Amino acid sequence: MEKKEALYEGKAKIIYATDKADELLVYYKDDATAGNGAKKGTIADKGIMNNKMTAFFFELLEKQGIKTHYVSMPSEREMLVKKLDMIPLEVVMRNVAAGSLAERLGLEEGTVLSKPIVELYYKSDKLGDPMLNHYHIQAVGLATPEEVAKVEELGLKVNSILKDFLKEKKVDLIDFKLEFGRYNGEVVLGDEISPDNCRFWDSDTHEKLDKDRFRRDLGNVEGAYKEMLRRLTGEER
Amino acid sequence: MEKKEALYEGKAKIIYATDKADELLVYYKDDATAGNGAKKGTIADKGIMNNKMTAFFFELLEKQGIKTHYVSMPSEREMLVKKLDMIPLEVVMRNVAAGSLAERLGLEEGTVLSKPIVELYYKSDKLGDPMLNHYHIQAVGLATPEEVAKVEELGLKVNSILKDFLKEKKVDLIDFKLEFGRYNGEVVLGDEISPDNCRFWDSDTHEKLDKDRFRRDLGNVEGAYKEMLRRLTGEER
Ligand SMILES: Nc1ncnc2c1ncn2[C@@H]1O[C@H](COP(=O)(O)OP(=O)(O)O)[C@@H](O)[C@H]1O
Ligand SMILES: Nc1ncnc2c1ncn2[C@@H]1O[C@H](COP(=O)(O)OP(=O)(O)O)[C@@H](O)[C@H]1O
Ligand SMILES: [Mg+2]
Ligand SMILES: [Mg+2]
Repeated sequence: MEKKEALYEGKAKIIYATDKADELLVYYKDDATAGNGAKKGTIADKGIMNNKMTAFFFELLEKQGIKTHYVSMPSEREMLVKKLDMIPLEVVMRNVAAGSLAERLGLEEGTVLSKPIVELYYKSDKLGDPMLNHYHIQAVGLATPEEVAKVEELGLKVNSILKDFLKEKKVDLIDFKLEFGRYNGEVVLGDEISPDNCRFWDSDTHEKLDKDRFRRDLGNVEGAYKEMLRRLTGEER
Repeated sequence: MEKKEALYEGKAKIIYATDKADELLVYYKDDATAGNGAKKGTIADKGIMNNKMTAFFFELLEKQGIKTHYVSMPSEREMLVKKLDMIPLEVVMRNVAAGSLAERLGLEEGTVLSKPIVELYYKSDKLGDPMLNHYHIQAVGLATPEEVAKVEELGLKVNSILKDFLKEKKVDLIDFKLEFGRYNGEVVLGDEISPDNCRFWDSDTHEKLDKDRFRRDLGNVEGAYKEMLRRLTGEER
């Protein structure tokens, strides 16, 4: 595999072309942002840890029959992935009320939901990632009704797999965000799964082990990422 | 029919009990609010005009097989209605992008939608009427999935009837908000249909004939309500 030109630099990753037309190299940065870019910082070794955790989760999901973009991890900050035609939706699954859901529904953070909630947001920095319903998605032509149904179905499946797995690691999966894309006519899971886009709470202490420590200035941000990596793979970094 | 005690005073109407347990008297005020109560004022004779327009629309809809709460109009500010067990949703139908939809999707006001959009909002002043999806509604237990499906189906039917009717009056139906309730196990249309909760634009000039004149300080607010009443019923007040 040969690394070619950078195609896109996002808030947390840089996407490079490779010598294969249908494969990309994702480089994980230590940069962290919150509030749609309003707050900026870095989290030491985040790129390394998120790359490793994402690889771990994607391998776990592939074993359970979920198609992901994951190909391999050529270095500790780099992931080789299938190039997807991204669906510009942030697909959020929630098991416990936190963040914007707690506000939206007037629930106390920590309120356990009787069933998972799926939310769809328009991935658009310009518009501030607004929440959408199925009618909006059709009006703007972001995805077909079949794709939307698939994305919700896969989101719920991923949620059920990860929730059960994390329970054994003494971690409660509060909520998380996925991104999907099209690959050979199929809907495939892309992007990342890490403390950047999941809420992980220690099952016993309810300590936050995720990016909320950065967003809310709770301290020990690196420590939270390290602890998650340790619980998942046993690695210290 | 005997008017009894006031049960609830809302932003635009007062609801009275009557001597019949399953009927209420709705009194239409001239009060106008915008921005969840941030802006307050009155619009001369609005109560009279909205009562008459609502009665007109409900009679039109009943003729087309839509069940509404409308019973009769005992006076020019009063409407006798069936008492519904209200579903706390604001059901918004949209044919053309305006207001919050234009913002949400980054569309210019006036952009015609290829198909109507339905949006569901939690009717809650405390929470600021947040938009909800079907998962939220189940999580909070606001309505059953069957009721939500019915509410969307009825909303789209009402939209189609009103849109076609208004076209002949040279009025474009841009968007509007409905409220539904339960009556003997059925989902029935309640509340009002007036320039307070619809966007009406003159088909030729695109002049606004609705509450946006109040919300946006466009002047000639009463004139807009009067013009709509005149086009609908021929009355001057
Ligand atoms: N397999 C893939 N193929 C193409 N694009 C992808 C793939 N996986 C993720 N992406 C996109 O690459 C970018 C990842 O970089 P990131 O820093 O997360 O960007 P952003 O700030 O836009 O979220 C995102 O825009 C994401 O949608
Ligand atoms: N048929 C009905 N039965 C019971 N309540 C109704 C009926 N129709 C409308 N309502 C409720 O009565 C109130 C109407 O008054 P309004 O001034 O519009 O109140 P609000 O400020 O709450 O919107 C609303 O809360 C509405 O949901
Ligand atoms: Mg991203
Ligand atoms: Mg009202």
